[in-house]
Amino acid sequence: MPFAKGHGTGNDFVIVPDTEGRLSLKPEDVALLCDRRRGIGGDGLLRVVPAESGSEAEWFMDYHNADGSIAEMCGNGLRVFVRYLLDTGLADGDVIPVDTRAGLKTAVLDGENIRVDMGPAEFGEASSASLDHYTWAGQSVSMGNPHLVCQLSESDDLQHLDLHYQPVFDAEVFPEGVNVEFVTGHYPHVAMRVHERGVGETLSCGTGVAAVAAVALNRHDADAKEGHVTVDVPGGRLEVDITPETVFLSGPAVVVAEGTTTLA
Amino acid sequence: MPFAKGHGTGNDFVIVPDTEGRLSLKPEDVALLCDRRRGIGGDGLLRVVPAESGSEAEWFMDYHNADGSIAEMCGNGLRVFVRYLLDTGLADGDVIPVDTRAGLKTAVLDGENIRVDMGPAEFGEASSASLDHYTWAGQSVSMGNPHLVCQLSESDDLQHLDLHYQPVFDAEVFPEGVNVEFVTGHYPHVAMRVHERGVGETLSCGTGVAAVAAVALNRHDADAKEGHVTVDVPGGRLEVDITPETVFLSGPAVVVAEGTTTLA
Repeated sequence: MPFAKGHGTGNDFVIVPDTEGRLSLKPEDVALLCDRRRGIGGDGLLRVVPAESGSEAEWFMDYHNADGSIAEMCGNGLRVFVRYLLDTGLADGDVIPVDTRAGLKTAVLDGENIRVDMGPAEFGEASSASLDHYTWAGQSVSMGNPHLVCQLSESDDLQHLDLHYQPVFDAEVFPEGVNVEFVTGHYPHVAMRVHERGVGETLSCGTGVAAVAAVALNRHDADAKEGHVTVDVPGGRLEVDITPETVFLSGPAVVVAEGTTTLA
Repeated sequence: MPFAKGHGTGNDFVIVPDTEGRLSLKPEDVALLCDRRRGIGGDGLLRVVPAESGSEAEWFMDYHNADGSIAEMCGNGLRVFVRYLLDTGLADGDVIPVDTRAGLKTAVLDGENIRVDMGPAEFGEASSASLDHYTWAGQSVSMGNPHLVCQLSESDDLQHLDLHYQPVFDAEVFPEGVNVEFVTGHYPHVAMRVHERGVGETLSCGTGVAAVAAVALNRHDADAKEGHVTVDVPGGRLEVDITPETVFLSGPAVVVAEGTTTLA
């Protein structure tokens, strides 16, 4: 079976081209392909399949989490997916529509970066997260999935956080769990680390970056509807544009290897 | 650049065929290739190069740690290296000699398993390791590299150990650091987890398995010079044969993918 591997700011994916839509990947196949030691390794898997007829898009991003479960969307995954389409000639031009389970998404080439529309950030109630005997106030944000954005104090150091463990959160506010972001700095330039629900710390999380940027703008000016935020994650740098309607995420995406595997 | 990926009981390697010995891989190239998110990902890298003329072996295993540094030998790496030679037709037969920095090693096909000679286990002084407020007595063992084998009590559970951290050890006994193994069960069947120096917990460690088997035999009968020990590691099961002269390690090894990469 052919495959490729790529990443966007360290958020990495196994890409499976299935241009005739013939492959059937079971959850255990996906989990093995994404297994970092017994398989190829990735935070998730992107299967490239034809979009349904009538769609504006030529391709559908069949996205799977590393454990084999299905997720609606993944911002970094979409950026890597589009880079793969461009590298292999499956798409061309500067504006590439892609069908996803969350609907039609449009990626735009932005120099070396690829920009994708993440949808709007919806603020929820204030809450808090605890880690290693410390508790930080946080803002809950939905990007389709739940986030809790915690601003550290000026004297806190992001590097000192021990994110081997899921931060403790209020299960009444987040009955399905939550991705927790820890932030230093202020609008228009912040740095963050993220603990992804069910995964652990990752080098980058597209929806987390969008949530953090929205909170940074709101902290700067609660009435602002537009702004540009630079967000540093452990895996690199992303640029976020907030508009009244939506949030755009822009950053690098590369395909680093391709080949064949006997795993599925 | 062509590459393959394989593993032995979850100890995984990037394999780089360089059958004419022309590639020059810098430490940073190796580190990027072994990077699990920005690269292909592996515990180490095995470059396949021709052995020097006059050697009994046709191939030399140029082994590198994931951080780009050089190590003399790697038992699981050698088993994966030999599987790659067999899969690709670079070697055939049941007995395959391979040159390594630790000298000529001979691998033997053993059904589905590949068996390699790890050299003898040399016992050192008693010491101890501490983790999470507990301290266990341990036996220091050299397999060319330093190990500290700690037997847990009957009531301890291997799964409860938190191996996110380097266990605390006596720096006077191990001035260059130490791989720490935690063991439950008794000869002839034990289970272990290992914290590899400079790496963290791994799913399997060939020299650690050999050290643990030697200690299990010695605890069973301090005069015994020969024995067979089954060792379960998080990544699978290995079989160890101890003789008066050396220790043999036998277990599965598979190549799961091959392709090309633009990383180096």
